[in-house]
Amino acid sequence: MTTRIAWIQSRYQGTVESTHRHYLAEAQKLADQGVDLLVLPELFTTRYFCISQDSDNFDLAITTDHPHLADWREMARTLNCVIVYSFFEKRADGLYHNTACVIERDGSTAGIYRKGHIPDDPGFNEKYYFSPGDTGFHPIATSAGVLGVLICWDQWFPEAARAMCLRGAQILIYPTAIAWDAQEPDDIKPTQCDAWITVMRGHAIANNVYAMAVNRIGDEGHLTFWGNSFLCRPDGSLQAHQDHTDDGPEWSVADFAQTEALRRAWPFFRDRRTDDYGVLLKKWGTP
Amino acid sequence: MTTRIAWIQSRYQGTVESTHRHYLAEAQKLADQGVDLLVLPELFTTRYFCISQDSDNFDLAITTDHPHLADWREMARTLNCVIVYSFFEKRADGLYHNTACVIERDGSTAGIYRKGHIPDDPGFNEKYYFSPGDTGFHPIATSAGVLGVLICWDQWFPEAARAMCLRGAQILIYPTAIAWDAQEPDDIKPTQCDAWITVMRGHAIANNVYAMAVNRIGDEGHLTFWGNSFLCRPDGSLQAHQDHTDDGPEWSVADFAQTEALRRAWPFFRDRRTDDYGVLLKKWGTP
Repeated sequence: MTTRIAWIQSRYQGTVESTHRHYLAEAQKLADQGVDLLVLPELFTTRYFCISQDSDNFDLAITTDHPHLADWREMARTLNCVIVYSFFEKRADGLYHNTACVIERDGSTAGIYRKGHIPDDPGFNEKYYFSPGDTGFHPIATSAGVLGVLICWDQWFPEAARAMCLRGAQILIYPTAIAWDAQEPDDIKPTQCDAWITVMRGHAIANNVYAMAVNRIGDEGHLTFWGNSFLCRPDGSLQAHQDHTDDGPEWSVADFAQTEALRRAWPFFRDRRTDDYGVLLKKWGTP
Repeated sequence: MTTRIAWIQSRYQGTVESTHRHYLAEAQKLADQGVDLLVLPELFTTRYFCISQDSDNFDLAITTDHPHLADWREMARTLNCVIVYSFFEKRADGLYHNTACVIERDGSTAGIYRKGHIPDDPGFNEKYYFSPGDTGFHPIATSAGVLGVLICWDQWFPEAARAMCLRGAQILIYPTAIAWDAQEPDDIKPTQCDAWITVMRGHAIANNVYAMAVNRIGDEGHLTFWGNSFLCRPDGSLQAHQDHTDDGPEWSVADFAQTEALRRAWPFFRDRRTDDYGVLLKKWGTP
């Protein structure tokens, strides 16, 4: 059985509503492709507001009964596909998360994931906006596969990928908003992007699963979002890859049976030394 | 402070003694380079005997007082460098390990590591020969840096790399014997080698440390050892890389201060969700 996996790499359109409509229109272009899964970039509906700390930006957060989610539930029915929808979640007064809602083909909620690892550096003030998720690293079972949905900064942590795969994830999925910063030297930019792709390819290889990331493009203040959305196979080889300017939907076919085939050749799960991994639960290896 | 890191990628010479002498002669070529660290490939003194199960091969195992170690201790004094020496260790009657001895510049033992993850697949019958190591994943402090010495199959396990780095490793070091198998199709061979390099580059990136692997070359039975020894920087970029035919010593300069510099930009260790990693200590995520 194969799974048709789609994503939309695009840009902020100037307002929340126009961007919401833009991505819906892009998704509609997939109507005749028979896709099983559609993944949207991190917080794609808004500009990347974490570029600064401004309490008014909490007005951008929505609850799970917001009309935008209703529109994407309708799109799931229209395309007959599972959709990974990333949004700024207002959970309660003063409690906000960076959340992905996985919508089933019938428009119902298959599950949610709240971003576990929260970055915070100049231009990416996420610890100000998002409380670290309390969902843990649990994949979400859907009609399009068992999805290891993680979000952006999670992609740098092998622990999150491994936890998802130990619980049966067939693919690692990273909605992302990652950018080059105009305040940094140009010569490190290709290395940054390559490191970003490489560490996720490493997770694919170490777990023998597909992995994908979907990033936005475009300039927002001193940030240039670098796109480079991709899907790689369980052996880490790139199967589909957009550059830093490609604008629009893309899709590719995954065969989740490759995981079992590859794990017979590279049986990492047989040989893990769980008796010697205790230090992984500590902040640092010494008191 | 920079560290000059050398390694020797070469081949089995037909007998144990001739191979031992060959690698010593190759090491001697580094005499004027002022190297601080020399890493030798996995089990380089012998042919890769794990290609089959033969109880006579246990005669190839040596104890730590074997004259070969004495020769490499002398070489450490001659070159004034730390040496990572990989060998088939006889620890007791009927108890054998795949071991690395780290020799200080003065010829003393800085520490040992016994391979923790043991492979076993056609042509690589290592579970027959080697009992899984009981050293755990502890780096070895030396005058050339804090060395995260792991061995071959360990390279596929992000847990081992992370454990070493949580305990202060400044570089991940993988003596290796990995090969293409003539019984497998040619078209997957570049992907296999690329996955091998990529997963270790991923460990470097995820931990912001240097990483290196040293592999042998040459045909032994149905195995063709693929070389491709390399050193990568903490951002995962390749700094030095041999191909599958290069035969001889290589060296390159590492600056361990890059780790702190990069961790300030990419502060992964600040953000690990140790409260959610418990599943990593389990064989699988469900009972």
